[in-house]
Amino acid sequence: MGIQESAPLDVERVREDFPILEREFDSNQLVYLDNAATTQTPNQVIDAIGDYYRETNANVHRGIHHLSQEASIAYEEAHDTLANFVGASGGREEMVFTKNTTEAENLVAYAWGLNELGEGDEVVLTEMEHHASLVTWQQIAKRTGATVRYIGITEEGELDMDHARDLIGPDTRMVSVVHVSNALGTINPVEELADLAHEQDALIFVDGAQAVPNRPVDVEAIDADFYAFSGHKMAGPTGIGCLYGKKAILEEMEPFLYGGDMIKKVTFEGAKWNDLPWKYEAGTPLIAQGIALERAVEYLEGIGMERVQAHEEWVTEYALERLTEFDDIEIYGPQKAENRGGLVGFNLNGVHAHDLASIMNDHAVAIRAGDHCTQPLHDVLGTAASARASFYIYNTREEIDRLVEAVDDARQLFA
Amino acid sequence: MGIQESAPLDVERVREDFPILEREFDSNQLVYLDNAATTQTPNQVIDAIGDYYRETNANVHRGIHHLSQEASIAYEEAHDTLANFVGASGGREEMVFTKNTTEAENLVAYAWGLNELGEGDEVVLTEMEHHASLVTWQQIAKRTGATVRYIGITEEGELDMDHARDLIGPDTRMVSVVHVSNALGTINPVEELADLAHEQDALIFVDGAQAVPNRPVDVEAIDADFYAFSGHKMAGPTGIGCLYGKKAILEEMEPFLYGGDMIKKVTFEGAKWNDLPWKYEAGTPLIAQGIALERAVEYLEGIGMERVQAHEEWVTEYALERLTEFDDIEIYGPQKAENRGGLVGFNLNGVHAHDLASIMNDHAVAIRAGDHCTQPLHDVLGTAASARASFYIYNTREEIDRLVEAVDDARQLFA
Repeated sequence: MGIQESAPLDVERVREDFPILEREFDSNQLVYLDNAATTQTPNQVIDAIGDYYRETNANVHRGIHHLSQEASIAYEEAHDTLANFVGASGGREEMVFTKNTTEAENLVAYAWGLNELGEGDEVVLTEMEHHASLVTWQQIAKRTGATVRYIGITEEGELDMDHARDLIGPDTRMVSVVHVSNALGTINPVEELADLAHEQDALIFVDGAQAVPNRPVDVEAIDADFYAFSGHKMAGPTGIGCLYGKKAILEEMEPFLYGGDMIKKVTFEGAKWNDLPWKYEAGTPLIAQGIALERAVEYLEGIGMERVQAHEEWVTEYALERLTEFDDIEIYGPQKAENRGGLVGFNLNGVHAHDLASIMNDHAVAIRAGDHCTQPLHDVLGTAASARASFYIYNTREEIDRLVEAVDDARQLFA
Repeated sequence: MGIQESAPLDVERVREDFPILEREFDSNQLVYLDNAATTQTPNQVIDAIGDYYRETNANVHRGIHHLSQEASIAYEEAHDTLANFVGASGGREEMVFTKNTTEAENLVAYAWGLNELGEGDEVVLTEMEHHASLVTWQQIAKRTGATVRYIGITEEGELDMDHARDLIGPDTRMVSVVHVSNALGTINPVEELADLAHEQDALIFVDGAQAVPNRPVDVEAIDADFYAFSGHKMAGPTGIGCLYGKKAILEEMEPFLYGGDMIKKVTFEGAKWNDLPWKYEAGTPLIAQGIALERAVEYLEGIGMERVQAHEEWVTEYALERLTEFDDIEIYGPQKAENRGGLVGFNLNGVHAHDLASIMNDHAVAIRAGDHCTQPLHDVLGTAASARASFYIYNTREEIDRLVEAVDDARQLFA
């Protein structure tokens, strides 16, 4: 993609859709660089939520009346839109709405893992897994007697694929990997990992929370068995995540949460499960959230995911360029923008990441500091915490200059 | 409470807050009587959602920047408000946000049941349980070797308390009961059931999805160990439920969903859990939903829950009076409004409930028809389905007249 002088998209036009970006703190306009945690929400999505409650609000699937019919159609079609967005040709049957990516990971770990894993079985993760995957598989393994193994990382913060080929073997039943690391920005070779898993008749779960918001994703090209992501990281609302699963696997797997709407027939003795995807959506589902998330997808598709990706790289490349000017800054992960997602994790020598984030905040520059839900990775990196600036479609190179000014300020304060 | 000539609250004033009530279908104004499924949302709550995304949106707990701090405070305080609303003196530590009541039931069934139940143990439910409780405990019992038993109901649709005293014995480990039946309207004696459970050192889980929206609830007066309810049935948003739990029990119990934010320390070998209630809220939580639900509670408290209850009884009493004029209508559950929640389940002889609901819909009268997620109860009642009209603070007696007119029309059509 390379550095372009002008942004790949009309950022000023995009910014008009995001009212929160007008906020000021002590006369400094907000520079929001915490997008890997939560992206901001455009008026189009906010309005979709309001419209839903003002015009359509009703429970779905079970109602004969107009509102319930309208809500049901909108909610069900949202599944199709989300499925199409990630290249799932099975449509709604392959798309389950969960409350976040974490629930998607737990759904599979409980519904599949608790029933399928046993002594001698292995679950292969990576050292850069998010706690959503790491803690979940640890606990399910503990309960079933399975073993968790971790693919190591290289000096550059990339997966050690030789180690991956060693680890993924005949005892492997599940490979659960992050597509784009939320701490390093590393883009993992998920297609190759899927091949390695499938050669051993293992399944692969891909955590795409940092991938789907930022680049075109095709779950079938990856050949992922499961693929999960979150609404609130892609211009959508909080409280919704998505689990793609291959139809044949979702049909065979046991359900996770039990209750209304996920059943076809219930007696005092037992139950028969509903069709896909409702089998995995127990109780009143995330109706307003699903409909609003569909609107977010339409918004992103209006821009075009290739252009979203190009913009992320355009901002990231400049951030890397500016931050590498200083030799007291350590940057984690791959050094080239095209090899990473739209985020930069770093530390300023001698300044704790929390202090750095706090000084940034005095400049109204919002970044995140901490372990980013990857404590074991930070043990590997040899630091308790890192600062992370993460970008989205409304960020500009001028905002990166504001970031660098704030870093300068921190350097002077702690000199 | 008795019949009053005028409504206990200013319904016309209340209706102004609910824009959806202005909707018309074929020139008939909507009569929304499907409130036991989902209540409508006042402008105050809709605006709170928009304000959140326009002004505060950020991930919580982990952020140092202004937005994250503001979102964290608002989200955490929402837990206190919800705890106070149901009389939980422990505040936020006793209030977990889930995606719906169903998840709350699953949380306890998995986190407590999977670890505590075994062969010979008994879980006592009632014949009027919702699938959320019934299917969940059936499946967890199946997995652990425990047995599920069901308290029967009387001719009047009330719990057979003699049977309850028989069933709840030394093998009982958990009693899970619905506070107000969503199909019969029956208000169950949950205080007495809690005493029976506690005498046997068993725990009690109360499903309050149909109680909290409609009447003052005090979980400590009930002495419930767990108490669950949903936001979308009490003027709040979809996608959020609440689980109250006694602090000592929540502290001791294992977590359910694993991931970020529910941990304190993670290594490649294991993890240490976070403080209450975050131990039970893995991943990015239901931030906008929690904040909006707090606004719904403030709205209901502005009216006063005693007055909400009085209004429900005022509408229900009139509905019972009008529907019992006809001897071809069978009404399920207690015959007196003060003995039931704000809903009436019924059947018109010779007309399938779905056909009845469909004709109602032609009149723009929105009711629900089906088994109301209580298939086994409907087997006991000897009918596959029932029609259900359920009421909320914006319903009027004139709307009940519209309901009765629609029933008349159905009677003539099927005569």
